[in-house]
Amino acid sequence: MSPQEQLVENAVKAKAKPARIQLAHGAGGQLTDELVKSHVLPRLGNDVLNELLDAAIIDPQHGSLAMTIDSFVVRPWKFPGGDIGRLAICGTINDLAVSGAKPAGIALAMILAEGLPISVMDDILDSVSTAAKEAQVQIVTGDTKVVGHDQADGIFLITAGVGRIPARRTLGPAQVKPGQVLVINGPIGEHGLAVMMARELPEAQLTVKSDVAPLNGLIDAAFSAVPNAIAFLRDPTRGGLAGVCSDLARQCGFRIILDEAAIQVRPEVRSAAEIFGLDPLDIANEGKVVMAVSERVARRLVAALRAHPLGRDAAIIGRVDTAEDGICELQTLIGGRRIVQKAHGEEPPRIF
Amino acid sequence: MSPQEQLVENAVKAKAKPARIQLAHGAGGQLTDELVKSHVLPRLGNDVLNELLDAAIIDPQHGSLAMTIDSFVVRPWKFPGGDIGRLAICGTINDLAVSGAKPAGIALAMILAEGLPISVMDDILDSVSTAAKEAQVQIVTGDTKVVGHDQADGIFLITAGVGRIPARRTLGPAQVKPGQVLVINGPIGEHGLAVMMARELPEAQLTVKSDVAPLNGLIDAAFSAVPNAIAFLRDPTRGGLAGVCSDLARQCGFRIILDEAAIQVRPEVRSAAEIFGLDPLDIANEGKVVMAVSERVARRLVAALRAHPLGRDAAIIGRVDTAEDGICELQTLIGGRRIVQKAHGEEPPRIF
Repeated sequence: MSPQEQLVENAVKAKAKPARIQLAHGAGGQLTDELVKSHVLPRLGNDVLNELLDAAIIDPQHGSLAMTIDSFVVRPWKFPGGDIGRLAICGTINDLAVSGAKPAGIALAMILAEGLPISVMDDILDSVSTAAKEAQVQIVTGDTKVVGHDQADGIFLITAGVGRIPARRTLGPAQVKPGQVLVINGPIGEHGLAVMMARELPEAQLTVKSDVAPLNGLIDAAFSAVPNAIAFLRDPTRGGLAGVCSDLARQCGFRIILDEAAIQVRPEVRSAAEIFGLDPLDIANEGKVVMAVSERVARRLVAALRAHPLGRDAAIIGRVDTAEDGICELQTLIGGRRIVQKAHGEEPPRIF
Repeated sequence: MSPQEQLVENAVKAKAKPARIQLAHGAGGQLTDELVKSHVLPRLGNDVLNELLDAAIIDPQHGSLAMTIDSFVVRPWKFPGGDIGRLAICGTINDLAVSGAKPAGIALAMILAEGLPISVMDDILDSVSTAAKEAQVQIVTGDTKVVGHDQADGIFLITAGVGRIPARRTLGPAQVKPGQVLVINGPIGEHGLAVMMARELPEAQLTVKSDVAPLNGLIDAAFSAVPNAIAFLRDPTRGGLAGVCSDLARQCGFRIILDEAAIQVRPEVRSAAEIFGLDPLDIANEGKVVMAVSERVARRLVAALRAHPLGRDAAIIGRVDTAEDGICELQTLIGGRRIVQKAHGEEPPRIF
């Protein structure tokens, strides 16, 4: 092979299989999936991890536990509607709650950069405290590490959560069947765009407020309203509603049909999405939950959600079709239909 | 106040209360304690967190669980005897095991820097896998975030663990009484000095190998050998043996007397400690456990530990005295006595 041919082959190889971590590997799209499936699961995989759930279900012989972990590296730390501290608590509470678990304890690790003003850490801890009180959970253990100021930009938080799953709750894509409908507790796209606006256009007049909130109370209310009728719960964070619904369609094997007219997007969110050229369907939420329930209880569920402060705009946004093709389809406002896919990973990362 | 007086006052204030995070805040010494006690506990404190145990004991009404979290930011990632992946698994397994818990699951979060060679991540994941198999535990859930390459140096790992505590195990400083002795499973100071040598003097002939290992099997063997006789278990990581023993003396209220002649330090560890001007007592270990047991079963315990590959050099290294002054004292090789205190935080950090 000539040196020229070798160069071309190397370039093709490099393009085909990036040998270095890219920002998009952490954005929750297809690239994240690929990293996990090609590098993590072959090394660490087991029956529990391979499920890739928001929270793992462990130790079933002793009464099931749910366990979850998440890192938070969002910049800026503070954004309209929340900060990294509130995000860390709500993210973990919500992962437990959508697994059907009652939170039993939260562990909080901080990685601080040398030189971080202690007052910044204090403000973030105040916010952690407020969110934990709101969710009625305790921080039970923690860890603090400090790294050189050139090695991390200020503060990363990592939260793990553990919860107990009431014996009769069986949730998951396998429970999702034709005849069920999808319900969400409000408008989409707020968290991701709030952070992007705060980071990229801090001087703009347009303010988008993050929806970051602990959903365990709302989800408790849902289980009380329609006991044993909830088939599936997921919080549309990284990857947005498109990610949750396309994953769900693939996993349950049926077609999911979303109704664009029923999916609420606040005007300021729509404007911000246009600025960034993004689809609100792909944008992360931090105070939303998608539920699949049988159609007969859907109105009762929506009424119960609307009675809760975090569910005032709850709505039925789609349904599970009988077609067994595992695709997610959007019925658009103008009467067309398009396939909804998980974003490739181009969504601006670091909004968590 | 004159400008000069103002300057002096400001300098005094700044010295009295550093307003910024320092590396030593993460080193596990007195400064870490102070940060936790002055900033974290006032905001997040509760009955469980305030105990500041290696692993929190939660949800006792349903059969107690132990929960722990730790971040790993060690540099270099790889050092003689281990790497950041092995360290993350062993650290978390050991925190559970010294709480008397049987590990039920480990959660692993990765914070990767953009540009990290994927092969480095793969090597670290291989090491995670090996350590998890050694400890016979599963990674049950995980999370991956990517940050800009100027914002983190390569890779941080964060592990959380949850375990079940067999009903009859009651461990802790409150169980430690005069007449008990302290046992350790081998020589001290290896992990911290292995990392410091690898980082600061990579070209040196002197090689110190980290002791990083999962201790759950050894601790199971100890519980089998002397059932119900173990009063206290702690792994002397950050803060070293000095940190564990001075904390224990303060917490149990009795004097702890350590016998320097019985505390083993390998020659290469002693040499390395001299190079850095450090006392091996203050150096972190990652494969050691300190146990307090009544004197009558101590020989049986030591024999059981010596029968295990991780306890071949187990020894009795001290005793709990009747003096109720809560101090830790070292009987030195030359027949003197000195007080052992927790280091202030000057130990080179980032060895975890």
